[in-house]
Amino acid sequence: MDVISIIRTKRDGGALSDAQIDWVVAAYTAGDVADEQMSALAMAILLNGMERREIARWTAAMIASGERMDFSALPLPTADKHSTGGVGDKITLPLAPLVAACGAAVPQLSGRGLGHTGGTLDKLESIPGWRASLDNAELLRVLDEAGAVICAAGAGLAPADRKLYALRDVTGTVESLPLIASSIMSKKIAEGTDSLVLDVKVGSGAFMKTLPDARALAETMVGLGTDHGVRTVALLTDMSTPLGRTAGNALEVRESVEVLAGGGPADVVALTLALAREMLDAAGLPDADPERALADGSAMDRWRRMISAQGGDPDAPLPVAREQHVVRAPATGVLATLDAYAVGLAAWRLGAGRARKEESVQAGAGVEMHAKPGDAVTEGEPLLTLHTDTPERFDAALEALAGEAIRVASPEEAHTVTPPSTVLDRIA
Amino acid sequence: MDVISIIRTKRDGGALSDAQIDWVVAAYTAGDVADEQMSALAMAILLNGMERREIARWTAAMIASGERMDFSALPLPTADKHSTGGVGDKITLPLAPLVAACGAAVPQLSGRGLGHTGGTLDKLESIPGWRASLDNAELLRVLDEAGAVICAAGAGLAPADRKLYALRDVTGTVESLPLIASSIMSKKIAEGTDSLVLDVKVGSGAFMKTLPDARALAETMVGLGTDHGVRTVALLTDMSTPLGRTAGNALEVRESVEVLAGGGPADVVALTLALAREMLDAAGLPDADPERALADGSAMDRWRRMISAQGGDPDAPLPVAREQHVVRAPATGVLATLDAYAVGLAAWRLGAGRARKEESVQAGAGVEMHAKPGDAVTEGEPLLTLHTDTPERFDAALEALAGEAIRVASPEEAHTVTPPSTVLDRIA
Repeated sequence: MDVISIIRTKRDGGALSDAQIDWVVAAYTAGDVADEQMSALAMAILLNGMERREIARWTAAMIASGERMDFSALPLPTADKHSTGGVGDKITLPLAPLVAACGAAVPQLSGRGLGHTGGTLDKLESIPGWRASLDNAELLRVLDEAGAVICAAGAGLAPADRKLYALRDVTGTVESLPLIASSIMSKKIAEGTDSLVLDVKVGSGAFMKTLPDARALAETMVGLGTDHGVRTVALLTDMSTPLGRTAGNALEVRESVEVLAGGGPADVVALTLALAREMLDAAGLPDADPERALADGSAMDRWRRMISAQGGDPDAPLPVAREQHVVRAPATGVLATLDAYAVGLAAWRLGAGRARKEESVQAGAGVEMHAKPGDAVTEGEPLLTLHTDTPERFDAALEALAGEAIRVASPEEAHTVTPPSTVLDRIA
Repeated sequence: MDVISIIRTKRDGGALSDAQIDWVVAAYTAGDVADEQMSALAMAILLNGMERREIARWTAAMIASGERMDFSALPLPTADKHSTGGVGDKITLPLAPLVAACGAAVPQLSGRGLGHTGGTLDKLESIPGWRASLDNAELLRVLDEAGAVICAAGAGLAPADRKLYALRDVTGTVESLPLIASSIMSKKIAEGTDSLVLDVKVGSGAFMKTLPDARALAETMVGLGTDHGVRTVALLTDMSTPLGRTAGNALEVRESVEVLAGGGPADVVALTLALAREMLDAAGLPDADPERALADGSAMDRWRRMISAQGGDPDAPLPVAREQHVVRAPATGVLATLDAYAVGLAAWRLGAGRARKEESVQAGAGVEMHAKPGDAVTEGEPLLTLHTDTPERFDAALEALAGEAIRVASPEEAHTVTPPSTVLDRIA
């Protein structure tokens, strides 16, 4: 087995054998295949694709590169959710305690943000005292106390994926269906959940820009989960405009708490409930009533327990950025476009995200949206509030929001504006 | 400028701007672009190609990454030759002193073998005492004493190419027309010759397996040379079967000396003369008579001076391998196939070549051919003699020669066997 012949096979449009895939993933994890060799192979995979069998084997090899968690000793069924990433996507925050309140165990291993999409752990870290890193014993203790836990995945899970993900990020090889699907599913399968609901985002703020691409990714991932004995379902959801009215770490925590308190933006509530129902169905709890768990405070109770059990103070005031800048509506009419990618980029540039893994994020930075597509707006009224501790960043954020990012339809053409549906399709 | 957007541009089928090319080549040379990023870009270039403008700019950027030699102070016109590499291709050895004997200065900066093709420096190093590494003053002294010098290129010439070549070798990104053409021509243009003759090999033992591919490479390289003010011409020559009757370091030196003594295999003599005429033409010496320089001993005289001036003893016995194994003709008839790649691979496995840069080569190892395609053979008579110091390598070498590598046509079908022409086409 040698890596150059494996690279050549994929480069020349061939399919890799099971033995080639097992070998190259293990050798890369062990450091016997160099980064520059794996990145050439990743580019060849991106450009020449993989058959379904290859994707399944690649995923299995990445799972086999590390340990697998096992929650089978828990008295409750486990449910897990994964989003392919979007702007303002804070859904994990209200969702995990909500599903726990309905009777499933939710061990939610999450990541940090990179680029224009935020990271769940970064958001929660804006809560004073909250800790993302737990060892296995702590994880089980929080799960026992709160029914839900959101924490960083240990380094032992799918180390091949951890290494390859970091490599893809710096080599222009992120946007590959086989590599995205195997990355997500190897981690999720290694996490040992019984059931998994995938939130596959579609639109400018997502990896997948079109519905057919998103559907292909969802079908591939559902197939991978099912093949590994995990009940898996996917929702295709809109990411042409941000979710909710905030993009940024503390801003999104605040909005999540509003949802748990029975309020919050309609799209966030709708998607949280849709995903909760899928998770509860997949966990064998079809009669649970997540709407009631939001209304009666039991989801909020789980949230407070979960945050406290990880050292956070659920009553502490959240950080607020030192400087604000208001973006006003450029015209009177109906907001037709508020582009997800532009808002994500602006939030990132304001300090909510990081360009490199080593960087820290600003807890208070981000974008607050006072109107969403379909809302009537009046020229000069506040449309967005930009938040940052470092006001020299405002110009770069405003640049991200220029051009076609914000569009107001005139009163005459207002009837042509259709706000996007939240859930576009379901793949099972 | 950032490398990821450059990788993405090429990955998505776009053309790189001049500024992008200048930046990425300089940043890679400086170490600011990492190997894993450049290999991803190289794979994208291999799979998506480059426009002629991109290739020209990439070549210019690689030249600009280092110093340029300048022979304009010499009283003689300079001529240079480059072969894209083949099996048994020892032509540089008799050619350089031959052209020098006809009145041109031949500063021939050469490389080492990697893979199944041999390296000119490895061959000459089988001459006791001969040194490949010369500083600029030594190079000029040898050139002055002998009219020709064959030595290692200094590290200052096209360092971007040096780094990229090593990277491509381990990442499956060698076989790319833009990368091959820019690699060869950046080095040759940086070497500062007035004129250049390219020997572009075609066939199983060459990078380019087909005439159209070889022609495209030749046309690209001739264009690059001409654009940089170097009179450039290319011959397309056969590499379906090895050149001459030897493949291996000392074996090829012996054969080269036979040619300089007025003997040697017909194909080696023919190609040496064809390339000499092209070099002399390009150097502005169309009336020179290389055939006479071979016959009257003046080329041999230059060879002896050149070897001596670099510390070698032209009269010392050449190393001979410790073990021999004879491969016999499998049938009676006419030798129809003696595959260049198979012979090259066998010579390599016998110890004539290296798998990694750090390895050393065996001076005596290689393959001696007692018949060439078109020759009559009798079942059981010696066809090849394999030479090595390490007889445990015979099996692997014989494996390379199995299957379709050697084919004898029966006496009835003998009339269908046409030995390949040496020179297939000329591009100017």
